[in-house]
Amino acid sequence: MNPIHELTGYLAAVLTTVSFVPQVLRTLRTRDTRAISLGMYLLFSAGVALWLIYGLLIGAWPIILANVVTLGLTLTVLWHKLREGRLDPARDPARDPARGDDQT
Amino acid sequence: MNPIHELTGYLAAVLTTVSFVPQVLRTLRTRDTRAISLGMYLLFSAGVALWLIYGLLIGAWPIILANVVTLGLTLTVLWHKLREGRLDPARDPARDPARGDDQT
Repeated sequence: MNPIHELTGYLAAVLTTVSFVPQVLRTLRTRDTRAISLGMYLLFSAGVALWLIYGLLIGAWPIILANVVTLGLTLTVLWHKLREGRLDPARDPARDPARGDDQT
Repeated sequence: MNPIHELTGYLAAVLTTVSFVPQVLRTLRTRDTRAISLGMYLLFSAGVALWLIYGLLIGAWPIILANVVTLGLTLTVLWHKLREGRLDPARDPARDPARGDDQT
């Protein structure tokens, strides 16, 4: 493969993979997953698993490496989102925006 | 390209792209982006733009189509996240988990 193409793929892979690190850190720090969509993380993780298979089928290393790591990160967020649902039976109430405003 | 490979790529593309739809809908409905990482959406959107370039360079249609749509969806979430920051100067306080528990 053309080295410029390969470099672009690797850079894209690094960015979209590394991007989940601040989300994982934020989720671990705040334990807050309320604004995060469960559906998104279910579908995204399934899709990333398929991208991994696609990468293996066509032998594209940027796709393979990126999706192994991304899958680990997205499953971490997904696990916390599922845990939120289990711990808080009143999950996903339509939140009153005014309630979040701290007057102090 | 082998049709099975191509189908896997398209299915992966559909899943990772469609996955952002529930997140966009949730963000539009609740206007809540507090648990969402700004860093993630900045890096992810930049990465998706590069995946789009990569797809164009190697002529991989699943990658091209997926990333055009994904970029539109992630930029929508990013825009709301940036707007939250502008509207709420006291953004990202370490949230007291107990505060979210509604006793009623």
